[in-house]
Amino acid sequence: MASPWKTASVPGLQLGLGCGFWICRSYRLLFRAGAMGPHVVPRQLVWLSRWQAVCARGASVQHRTRAGVSRIPSLLSPGGALGASPLVRRSSSSTPPGAPEVVLTQQRYPVTRLPFSAVSAEDLAAFERILPGGVVTDPEVLEASNVDWLRTVRGCSKVLLRPRTSQEVARILRYCHERNLAVNPQGGNTGMVGGSVPVFDEIILSTTLMNRIISFHSVSGTLVCQAGCVLEELSQYVEERGFVMPLDLGAKGSCHIGGNVATNAGGLRFLRYGSLHGTVLGLEVVLADGTVLDCLTSLRKDNTGYDLKQLFIGSEGTLGVITAVSIQCPPKPRAVNVAFLGCPGFAEVLQTFSSGKELLGEILSAYEFMDAECMWLVTHHLHLASPVQESPFYVLVETSGSRAGHDAEKLSDFLERALSSGLVTDGTVATDQTRLKALWALRERISEALSRDGYVYKGW
Amino acid sequence: MASPWKTASVPGLQLGLGCGFWICRSYRLLFRAGAMGPHVVPRQLVWLSRWQAVCARGASVQHRTRAGVSRIPSLLSPGGALGASPLVRRSSSSTPPGAPEVVLTQQRYPVTRLPFSAVSAEDLAAFERILPGGVVTDPEVLEASNVDWLRTVRGCSKVLLRPRTSQEVARILRYCHERNLAVNPQGGNTGMVGGSVPVFDEIILSTTLMNRIISFHSVSGTLVCQAGCVLEELSQYVEERGFVMPLDLGAKGSCHIGGNVATNAGGLRFLRYGSLHGTVLGLEVVLADGTVLDCLTSLRKDNTGYDLKQLFIGSEGTLGVITAVSIQCPPKPRAVNVAFLGCPGFAEVLQTFSSGKELLGEILSAYEFMDAECMWLVTHHLHLASPVQESPFYVLVETSGSRAGHDAEKLSDFLERALSSGLVTDGTVATDQTRLKALWALRERISEALSRDGYVYKGW
Repeated sequence: MASPWKTASVPGLQLGLGCGFWICRSYRLLFRAGAMGPHVVPRQLVWLSRWQAVCARGASVQHRTRAGVSRIPSLLSPGGALGASPLVRRSSSSTPPGAPEVVLTQQRYPVTRLPFSAVSAEDLAAFERILPGGVVTDPEVLEASNVDWLRTVRGCSKVLLRPRTSQEVARILRYCHERNLAVNPQGGNTGMVGGSVPVFDEIILSTTLMNRIISFHSVSGTLVCQAGCVLEELSQYVEERGFVMPLDLGAKGSCHIGGNVATNAGGLRFLRYGSLHGTVLGLEVVLADGTVLDCLTSLRKDNTGYDLKQLFIGSEGTLGVITAVSIQCPPKPRAVNVAFLGCPGFAEVLQTFSSGKELLGEILSAYEFMDAECMWLVTHHLHLASPVQESPFYVLVETSGSRAGHDAEKLSDFLERALSSGLVTDGTVATDQTRLKALWALRERISEALSRDGYVYKGW
Repeated sequence: MASPWKTASVPGLQLGLGCGFWICRSYRLLFRAGAMGPHVVPRQLVWLSRWQAVCARGASVQHRTRAGVSRIPSLLSPGGALGASPLVRRSSSSTPPGAPEVVLTQQRYPVTRLPFSAVSAEDLAAFERILPGGVVTDPEVLEASNVDWLRTVRGCSKVLLRPRTSQEVARILRYCHERNLAVNPQGGNTGMVGGSVPVFDEIILSTTLMNRIISFHSVSGTLVCQAGCVLEELSQYVEERGFVMPLDLGAKGSCHIGGNVATNAGGLRFLRYGSLHGTVLGLEVVLADGTVLDCLTSLRKDNTGYDLKQLFIGSEGTLGVITAVSIQCPPKPRAVNVAFLGCPGFAEVLQTFSSGKELLGEILSAYEFMDAECMWLVTHHLHLASPVQESPFYVLVETSGSRAGHDAEKLSDFLERALSSGLVTDGTVATDQTRLKALWALRERISEALSRDGYVYKGW
């Protein structure tokens, strides 16, 4: 089973705003807990050094920031120079040419393998009987599933299982339970805290082939699907029917909905549609002994009895394998705007947020901020062009509404106030899909840019 | 401890829309489970008869409904005659003059008292030491806490405890745990499924005096308060600061926020702000043995580790006593409209809902429907005046937005389409507080009207 990471934040940086934020200086320190014991990973000191180094570099931002207040060049019209920045599909981590091989987790960390059995030839034969053609032992194929996307941890699993149904998952887990074999459930393997790959030689149980949409209700917007459906494909499916997925994140091209739920992914639509604890209506879960727990209700206003499914949201595979998800999809907004703004300080980031909540109200669908360090990383490593002047902080504001004219009027009023009161010093607004994606890429590709600098430790 | 009720719905009536609905013909059948065993309560047959009787009366509605389609008299302006219908504060159930006494639960149902200890004089002295002045044994005062609001079940508790702090709750529960004394946590005693009062002589642990607001964050809208705060008082508190509570329900004048969370109350804002599983950020809970479980976080986007607090949302006091709540309050809408409409059939109710989601989009904050039977009950028993012609179904549509002009335009377009396509045959719209409340009363006071007809069995 995947080991959960527990995180402790750098004091003073838990904002509780409900909006997204990305700030280089807020790297969380990671402690590995659970199956591997509660000890602090020795690299903590290294991370602290890194944090201090980033702080030091952060100071130089002040020097690079231009003095004075400039006007937003062209509100509500395309403006600013953006580099080509299509969102990349996260590929799995087979060793890229020239990249150093990832050190085995068991060699890097002082971890001890628990007394699980090792996979035998008889076990492989049993798996082959349960999943004809679904048992992978080819080391090259396995490599991609043994290493995480950020290339920081690596297991040495010898077998990858690809079931297609909950019943197959149940049979596998029942067998492994009886044989005392360790199992690591895996979705799209896009996680950034090392929880999606084995620590040792756990069997990898992939949801890749469990990608069937079970039902969609066009009045209520309730989608029921298998856990291995890719988020972006689900998005396309429901958008064609006038709805959107209640969550969106940079890894959408590869991540699985089951993994999203298992890790309680927040994502970029959190501000508007809330947490998965509210939008997930039901789950089907297979427990470690093979018991199938059917909580796959699709009744939205259900308050009868204990809501057992909630326990699995965010449990990262430690309590069971999520095999199917029922989720509430909101109606697709007819108009979307994105404003990308420069802010002179953190106090102004907060005030701009309050002002946005007041003036944009129900159409405010995302509010993300990043510091100058992040902008430096995406512009230098990924060659994206910043659409605004250099600033200590940047804010991305998205609106989603049902009438373009109304939304533009609200956004214009908000930007006017933000600019005239000095909360914002520069900005650009996009309404067409290409520029929307380009502005979002500045936020979504920070993780990718960070990874070019070496190891990245991310706690949420 | 309060026993949970398990419910089974009449087939075909679970709509899964996420909107509110009230339909006389959808009475759920109640099964009492938990401490009292899984047997079906014999009165089920009586309820079935009642359900059939209501269905038979429902048929007569067709006769009372006028034929033909009439125009909405005055869209977006006050119209229709409404009787005086201020929302009543739910008083506790001391015997009203002339009302028959409620039969003891243990006499009406085949229930068996579990082998808990009985409260002794020594116990009372111990409670008095823990809660000086907070121990109530006066039978007249106890009567109100022994009977539920609908006057259908009645316990015979001899002692009511009123702690002020979590520490006091912990000391009480620790003592009761050691002494094997049964405890019934109680909030505002406004529940309608009999879960808030003792079955036998359980000690009643009331949250009435735990009514302190602990903190409110004016940027994030996060409210932290004790469990005994009355919902309406919290609403007033946050509204003065530019926010609203994410839930609202007819019992708001008396119900406690702790009870709302313990019963996972849905309420009238569910459609807009979602379930308490999404809006409750943290809980403090005292377990049966006196252990205080501190999950009172106020970080909105928290996905670290197991979300233990979720288990207590909807657990109805069976897993512990909720003593404090951290909850996310959305910004207060600047404009609110309510339309009350007559619909010719259930298919039209669904289509009107879909049309509303499409045209009202993000400002649609409530969609409730009731059948003609419910209207008959509130007009005859409570003397409220129906603002529209008699119809087989009625729909209440509420919009909440940040700009009155925009909202009125959207609502007007929606009503025009609903009327011209025959989905709606009559309607009225309100924008001022008095008429808003009067229209809402038609929906909110159905429970009260039903209770005038005799016993009411309600499953959600």
